[in-house]
Amino acid sequence: MQVTPWDVEGVIDYDRLIEEFGMRPFSEVLGEIENPHILMRRGAIFGHRDYWRIVEAMKAKEPWAVMSGFMPSGLPHFGHKMTMDEIVWHQKAGGKAFIAIADMEAHAVRGLSWEKTRELALEYIKSIIALGLDTNAIIYFQSKSDHVKDLAFELSAEVNFSELRAIYGFDGETKLAKMFIAAIQAADILHPQLLEFEGPKPVVVPVGADQDPHMRLTRDLAARASIFSFEQIKGGLRIRSRKGRDYLDALKDLNFETRFYEEHADVFGNIDEIEREVRSIEVKLGGFAFIPPSSTYHRFTTGLTGGKMSSSKPESYISLLDKPEEAGKKVMKAFTGGRATAEEQRRLGGEPEKCVVFELYSYHLIEKDDELKQIESDCKEGRLLCGKCKKIAAELVRNFLKEHQEKMEEAESRFEDYIIIGL
Amino acid sequence: MQVTPWDVEGVIDYDRLIEEFGMRPFSEVLGEIENPHILMRRGAIFGHRDYWRIVEAMKAKEPWAVMSGFMPSGLPHFGHKMTMDEIVWHQKAGGKAFIAIADMEAHAVRGLSWEKTRELALEYIKSIIALGLDTNAIIYFQSKSDHVKDLAFELSAEVNFSELRAIYGFDGETKLAKMFIAAIQAADILHPQLLEFEGPKPVVVPVGADQDPHMRLTRDLAARASIFSFEQIKGGLRIRSRKGRDYLDALKDLNFETRFYEEHADVFGNIDEIEREVRSIEVKLGGFAFIPPSSTYHRFTTGLTGGKMSSSKPESYISLLDKPEEAGKKVMKAFTGGRATAEEQRRLGGEPEKCVVFELYSYHLIEKDDELKQIESDCKEGRLLCGKCKKIAAELVRNFLKEHQEKMEEAESRFEDYIIIGL
Repeated sequence: MQVTPWDVEGVIDYDRLIEEFGMRPFSEVLGEIENPHILMRRGAIFGHRDYWRIVEAMKAKEPWAVMSGFMPSGLPHFGHKMTMDEIVWHQKAGGKAFIAIADMEAHAVRGLSWEKTRELALEYIKSIIALGLDTNAIIYFQSKSDHVKDLAFELSAEVNFSELRAIYGFDGETKLAKMFIAAIQAADILHPQLLEFEGPKPVVVPVGADQDPHMRLTRDLAARASIFSFEQIKGGLRIRSRKGRDYLDALKDLNFETRFYEEHADVFGNIDEIEREVRSIEVKLGGFAFIPPSSTYHRFTTGLTGGKMSSSKPESYISLLDKPEEAGKKVMKAFTGGRATAEEQRRLGGEPEKCVVFELYSYHLIEKDDELKQIESDCKEGRLLCGKCKKIAAELVRNFLKEHQEKMEEAESRFEDYIIIGL
Repeated sequence: MQVTPWDVEGVIDYDRLIEEFGMRPFSEVLGEIENPHILMRRGAIFGHRDYWRIVEAMKAKEPWAVMSGFMPSGLPHFGHKMTMDEIVWHQKAGGKAFIAIADMEAHAVRGLSWEKTRELALEYIKSIIALGLDTNAIIYFQSKSDHVKDLAFELSAEVNFSELRAIYGFDGETKLAKMFIAAIQAADILHPQLLEFEGPKPVVVPVGADQDPHMRLTRDLAARASIFSFEQIKGGLRIRSRKGRDYLDALKDLNFETRFYEEHADVFGNIDEIEREVRSIEVKLGGFAFIPPSSTYHRFTTGLTGGKMSSSKPESYISLLDKPEEAGKKVMKAFTGGRATAEEQRRLGGEPEKCVVFELYSYHLIEKDDELKQIESDCKEGRLLCGKCKKIAAELVRNFLKEHQEKMEEAESRFEDYIIIGL
């Protein structure tokens, strides 16, 4: 298997992804979450980094944010709907929502005109509003966000070509714009922590597993662009300054026992409280004091035709703008987890865990767990055959799209209720 | 010798520079210029690219611009004064002046804080105003110019890492910010041609010879970022579209005989007029239609102590902020073209062509040619010895600085008469 932001190939082994990339299984935090989203409960979200920061902020009712983005180079589909649902859920759970329209990437890397990116972007904005986004959100076009562009430039001083090559596989042919986009994306993720947005806070980025390289780079840049670094020691934290020894002097006002050394200071006490106080000192000194961003990772959406979802094969996915009837037909043609013959399926049962139709139910169409369970057991025990099952799914898809598209139309008339930077 | 934007080493052979880099000797256009500046007449400006575009625009009284920039990482000195004088002269000759404060480079590549770059920048702005800049100029901080930053991103889609490596010697250690600065500088040079500044026009960039790599890259990017390219053929121009065949169709409205082929169009007539008309069509199509920028190259300022001028050796240069008395003392200690003893010098004469004091006279202190000639022959014929000559120069430097610094102070009170973006 190959998983990079530009290429996902082969059968994805999610346990191996967790292990190789150093993510954590989402199951370990699931129990801490109040009313988890179906994508969380049903294993679509399989991994995370530092989600405990979000859990703690939710519990303590302290400020935190959710941030993700969409590249307007094609139309939004059910894969994007996963991310949109995740943003909306986190917003309802108390996070400030930031939504990037990655028009700079679509323009410079994919070669779309600004007019085209704008036209496509509107469909994403309408869709996420239709999916329940509250007006208390910040939607922005990358190309129109000075905060993001200027922060990207600052971050670009902290990463060299060798690192970009190692993370993204860039080579001599790679255009400078594509390299700079790496810094833009890091700035997308970190800018909710700028002073203009009320300073350092935990930020969760719900993404597909292929986006993890961005997270790893961004977490590195968050540390490098900040003044103080933290290392846990017995009874406290060791603090170093990345921008010169002088800054350590500012720690003398800490309300904790502090011992100063040549190149660091050791601070003793509750490490969360120390970290918080040190970050607030850094902000006063003009530093970024970025908290490493958290992330959740969801599974890739399987193509309706069995293989990879591909924007060049419209029959492989359901666009949120598909005519309901067309989408229903696509479902009827979908590759399922059924057996070769009806007789065999009655005898052996179907395999919902391999079925894109069941995936649709599970991630998008059926909210109630007992309803989903019923379908699952009916399938497994050979009571529900694929033909009938697909009819049910097609009906649900048609209804969903009909309603969604009505809401999208309505959303357009409510744009002015939202902050949409660059609209 | 080594000449790159970051390193100038050894004895500079200007004829070889012209040959190696493909510049043209400035002498070939000098005769076409009305009232040329002393730096032009006296050979300080030794090379150019496409200066004939400026000569023609001046003669035809058509719009053109002069553009250059200053990096606020140290104080302005007599080397910067050359560029400032060139900008002011071109402005008086009818060019619209654009002056970049390269704070992004000073911050990200040299590591200066934004506050420090700003503080230093003010001295450059005061100095160029003191040197006679008219209010009809656009001075801007790179970091505050959306036009420049956004154009830099567009241009960055047209250059890859291998090219940057070949031009600037970048390697794996090179920070992304330093790479992006290459695009920022190209945007500095090209942005006077944006529609917001009245569209395509000849632009001359007066710079030191070490800045030629930027010019070569910028001229390439000007072509790549534009839709139409031009190739001279018998009786006209062959026009190709860099952004797809479709654009060629727009040439059917040309007021010239035009033959269309699969991949190009041949247009017959006066090539200047064809080029102008094609560019105006491109602008209507939303293209940049950049005219390759022109440039002039001046010699490096020799250090007062004989070797390289170095910002870490204040005795090697005269800062425009030096106390006049201090500057006078530096002149008195300067390395001259004198002989070992006074007796020998009376007999053999001095060597003004090797003398930094004579360079000061020639480029900065003596406006009148006959006055300069007198000193030159008095020196060569052993009548004027170095001690007396340096006293004269020191006096001129003191007077110049005293007056310049008074004008700088006055300039600060006139900032509001100028357009200074980001002040």
